[in-house]
Amino acid sequence: MEKLILFISLMVCCLAEKKDLSGKMFTFPVDSDTIYVKLKPDLTKTFLTTTVCMRYFTDLQRSYSLFSLASPSADNNLLLWNEKNGPFNVWVAQNHVSFYGMNNELNSWNSLCATWDSRTGIGQLWLNGKPSNRKSVSPGSTSLTGDLSIVLGQEQDSYEGSFDTKQSFVGSITDVYMWDTVLPSKNIQYYMHNEIYRPTEYDSMSKPGNVLNWVSLDFTTHGSVVVEDKIM
Amino acid sequence: MEKLILFISLMVCCLAEKKDLSGKMFTFPVDSDTIYVKLKPDLTKTFLTTTVCMRYFTDLQRSYSLFSLASPSADNNLLLWNEKNGPFNVWVAQNHVSFYGMNNELNSWNSLCATWDSRTGIGQLWLNGKPSNRKSVSPGSTSLTGDLSIVLGQEQDSYEGSFDTKQSFVGSITDVYMWDTVLPSKNIQYYMHNEIYRPTEYDSMSKPGNVLNWVSLDFTTHGSVVVEDKIM
Amino acid sequence: MEKLILFISLMVCCLAEKKDLSGKMFTFPVDSDTIYVKLKPDLTKTFLTTTVCMRYFTDLQRSYSLFSLASPSADNNLLLWNEKNGPFNVWVAQNHVSFYGMNNELNSWNSLCATWDSRTGIGQLWLNGKPSNRKSVSPGSTSLTGDLSIVLGQEQDSYEGSFDTKQSFVGSITDVYMWDTVLPSKNIQYYMHNEIYRPTEYDSMSKPGNVLNWVSLDFTTHGSVVVEDKIM
Amino acid sequence: MEKLILFISLMVCCLAEKKDLSGKMFTFPVDSDTIYVKLKPDLTKTFLTTTVCMRYFTDLQRSYSLFSLASPSADNNLLLWNEKNGPFNVWVAQNHVSFYGMNNELNSWNSLCATWDSRTGIGQLWLNGKPSNRKSVSPGSTSLTGDLSIVLGQEQDSYEGSFDTKQSFVGSITDVYMWDTVLPSKNIQYYMHNEIYRPTEYDSMSKPGNVLNWVSLDFTTHGSVVVEDKIM
Amino acid sequence: MEKLILFISLMVCCLAEKKDLSGKMFTFPVDSDTIYVKLKPDLTKTFLTTTVCMRYFTDLQRSYSLFSLASPSADNNLLLWNEKNGPFNVWVAQNHVSFYGMNNELNSWNSLCATWDSRTGIGQLWLNGKPSNRKSVSPGSTSLTGDLSIVLGQEQDSYEGSFDTKQSFVGSITDVYMWDTVLPSKNIQYYMHNEIYRPTEYDSMSKPGNVLNWVSLDFTTHGSVVVEDKIM
Repeated sequence: MEKLILFISLMVCCLAEKKDLSGKMFTFPVDSDTIYVKLKPDLTKTFLTTTVCMRYFTDLQRSYSLFSLASPSADNNLLLWNEKNGPFNVWVAQNHVSFYGMNNELNSWNSLCATWDSRTGIGQLWLNGKPSNRKSVSPGSTSLTGDLSIVLGQEQDSYEGSFDTKQSFVGSITDVYMWDTVLPSKNIQYYMHNEIYRPTEYDSMSKPGNVLNWVSLDFTTHGSVVVEDKIM
Repeated sequence: MEKLILFISLMVCCLAEKKDLSGKMFTFPVDSDTIYVKLKPDLTKTFLTTTVCMRYFTDLQRSYSLFSLASPSADNNLLLWNEKNGPFNVWVAQNHVSFYGMNNELNSWNSLCATWDSRTGIGQLWLNGKPSNRKSVSPGSTSLTGDLSIVLGQEQDSYEGSFDTKQSFVGSITDVYMWDTVLPSKNIQYYMHNEIYRPTEYDSMSKPGNVLNWVSLDFTTHGSVVVEDKIM
Repeated sequence: MEKLILFISLMVCCLAEKKDLSGKMFTFPVDSDTIYVKLKPDLTKTFLTTTVCMRYFTDLQRSYSLFSLASPSADNNLLLWNEKNGPFNVWVAQNHVSFYGMNNELNSWNSLCATWDSRTGIGQLWLNGKPSNRKSVSPGSTSLTGDLSIVLGQEQDSYEGSFDTKQSFVGSITDVYMWDTVLPSKNIQYYMHNEIYRPTEYDSMSKPGNVLNWVSLDFTTHGSVVVEDKIM
Repeated sequence: MEKLILFISLMVCCLAEKKDLSGKMFTFPVDSDTIYVKLKPDLTKTFLTTTVCMRYFTDLQRSYSLFSLASPSADNNLLLWNEKNGPFNVWVAQNHVSFYGMNNELNSWNSLCATWDSRTGIGQLWLNGKPSNRKSVSPGSTSLTGDLSIVLGQEQDSYEGSFDTKQSFVGSITDVYMWDTVLPSKNIQYYMHNEIYRPTEYDSMSKPGNVLNWVSLDFTTHGSVVVEDKIM
Repeated sequence: MEKLILFISLMVCCLAEKKDLSGKMFTFPVDSDTIYVKLKPDLTKTFLTTTVCMRYFTDLQRSYSLFSLASPSADNNLLLWNEKNGPFNVWVAQNHVSFYGMNNELNSWNSLCATWDSRTGIGQLWLNGKPSNRKSVSPGSTSLTGDLSIVLGQEQDSYEGSFDTKQSFVGSITDVYMWDTVLPSKNIQYYMHNEIYRPTEYDSMSKPGNVLNWVSLDFTTHGSVVVEDKIM
């Protein structure tokens, strides 16, 4: 009987903290240095490999940040950055690598995944089902450690802050997932073509985002972020 | 018997005042500051949310106004404005927001809807079935109030006047509707793909344009506006 | 018996004067101010509405005249003019209106119709099945009157003359029709998609070109115009 | 018996002189003023109409000659010339006419026919099934007479010589035919879509290239021309 | 019994030296002058004809080397070079020929074959199923002789060395084959459309890469080359 009560109180605790955002999106409605979403990872251990997946919808004509992960010692610990009229840049441990020819569409949902492996430093992007070249950045670095600060909507020029309006994201973001592994390409293709990532149906070995999981997400909104139904 | 007479006289009254423009269009045949249509809304109460839908056909190469709603205190209370070689601008309560990458076709019918919600200020366009980014303009403003002046063909630089030939619309407009709610996206998609908006067939909850309704429209034409059969 | 003889002699008369040009075309083989075809209308009464249809094939890179109708008092009484890198211009009664975004194809048959109504002045083009915007030019003018001079291949800068090599047409023209009415859009679409205009099969009310009729055409050729089989 | 011997010796003679080049091509492997093929027509009489057909494969970025026919009195008696970033030029009797919008593809077989009629001077090109405008050049000239010198790979600036490296053809040529008539368009379309020109199967009236015939060709190669299997 | 032992030890020896790289690729992850793969040909005799096939995946915006074969006397003995915004260059015996209009795709597997015949000097490229023009370079040269040094990832400016970061390849390479013959076009097309080159199934006469064979390849990696699963 005590066990059951404990279980229920844990559930209450967790339900209170995490939300299933299936069919929802975050909308960042204007240029600002104050509007953002803070994501709180499920996992705090150090990890040497990672995959981040997300979908975004925008009509921005300038450069902007899509995913900004900082640690106390490195603001650009993991940063997905879309350069105006230029490449897609991935920053790891303060260094970056540029991916050319990966162009998103305006006013459409763009499905994006990024993988990185610290041993070889090889990172790769996937945009709307199309893989990028595989290129190395910060090999041997053990960047994904410590008290990680993950921010959507702004680019952290210092840990948890120093936002810049000209680098902010304006538009909508949905279906955000993060793993502590490099996801196999078949799983990434599954994400590209399905709204909800349910790898248990597809591949019993993989987990549904063990760092960030859209269907059970711990987050706080800041400024006039709107949580609303996805644009269909 | 008296009831019947009253009913008939009401019908006569309404038929006299409103027209069913199904299959018709307004043609604004030349650049001018004198040719326009004045629309008289069905609803005069203040409302905090709105949707406007219309179809237009033009070969204009310059900027022009598509829908100009002014109140005595704000000439750009709600304005749909197509910028030359630029974004689609939506003005609400004297401020505007720009939507990029929403390009209409010349010499074709373009189906356009715009929604706005005063609480978040979020507005959105739909052009030929394609949704825009969702962006905020004048949040908290209660713009749609007072004695509204709605004009097609000209842009009101002051309430009910101050037209400018260089901002006029030349071409044809049809199927104009306005609601005091943000229409659900399925209803907007229904409008995009159907000539007549008959939401009762589609969704029994929504009304067929409770502010402006093309099949029962109160309007006056000014200058050489032509009411004629739609271009097929 | 007398009636029959009269009927036969009339037939002989008409067959002698008019030709059925089905499957034929006029070829204007070089730049010149001397090569042209003069068309002699069936109808000499004044008319207030008109439709002209024709097909043309060219690789011209400069501006050129497609159809030049002059009266003694107005050389540009009705002129279809293709502007280099610019709009399609329709002149009526010495004024013109420009249609943008109506682009023909080089080295292909282009099907063109133009309508005009003197009451509103509204004119419209149809090019390869695509309608133009509807725009007004010379409303209220009664231009199609008097002794009309219709010329293909040259632009009349004065009645029946003043040709300019730089405005001449080089290429081929076929299936020329003219009416004293504004043809309904379904009839125009029929023309767009059929070699021979046989409205009797399609719409018993309309006539097969009561001003100019390709299957019974009164014309004279000047200079090295070639009447030959249509390019297939 | 004597007749049979004569017949056999004639056959031997002819087989020795002419080759069936079905499935073969000439390759002109480098820029030069020394590499070319000389073709020896079957017909030496004067003729007033002609058709030339050939296929070519190249990646040239500059202007070049495709077919150069000279007579002692006129080096550009019949010349097919592809102008860099410009029109296709056909020269007849020292004059030329330009065909715009006839663009070949790089690194593909391009099927080209040219017709000319001395009476009207009207010439026409067909490129990959697409007809050109019909335009006049040197009407009334009787150019195809005398001791004709036909050269592939070089442009004759004088009879049988004066080659220019910058005008040479680099690439491959196959299926060359020439007639002393203007081929009907159905026969030209047959050539466009069939490797071997066998008009007997198609139209019993026409002859398989009575001036030049790829399946029975009299030619000499000069310089490092290679006769090899067609690129498939 | 001794024979069997000898056979087994030979097998062990060979398995130790050569690898079946089916389904694998080399990834060159960054710009460098130190990262490369050295290939050791199966064949050391002099040969006068050759075919090289390979697939590559890159997003490089600059010029780069794809295949660099040097002999002690000639560093550019056989070099496949992709020029920025320019042609594909093939170098043989220190001379080169440019192929225009052969454009690869970014972030896709590109299938490339090159053939060369010393007698005529004619070389040809095939890119993604599309053949190039046939052009001559270094005819009569006997370049493929001596102790050949084949390098992927770098361009040898001298025999086995003098690498230049600005000429390095960044991306992935797979399915590398080389023959001492000019492969028939049907075999090249087979390679273009099949992952593994198994000519025995297709054409019993040809051999599966008798100079270099991806399914049995002798190679050494230098620097941070990664051998990993092919991008799918």
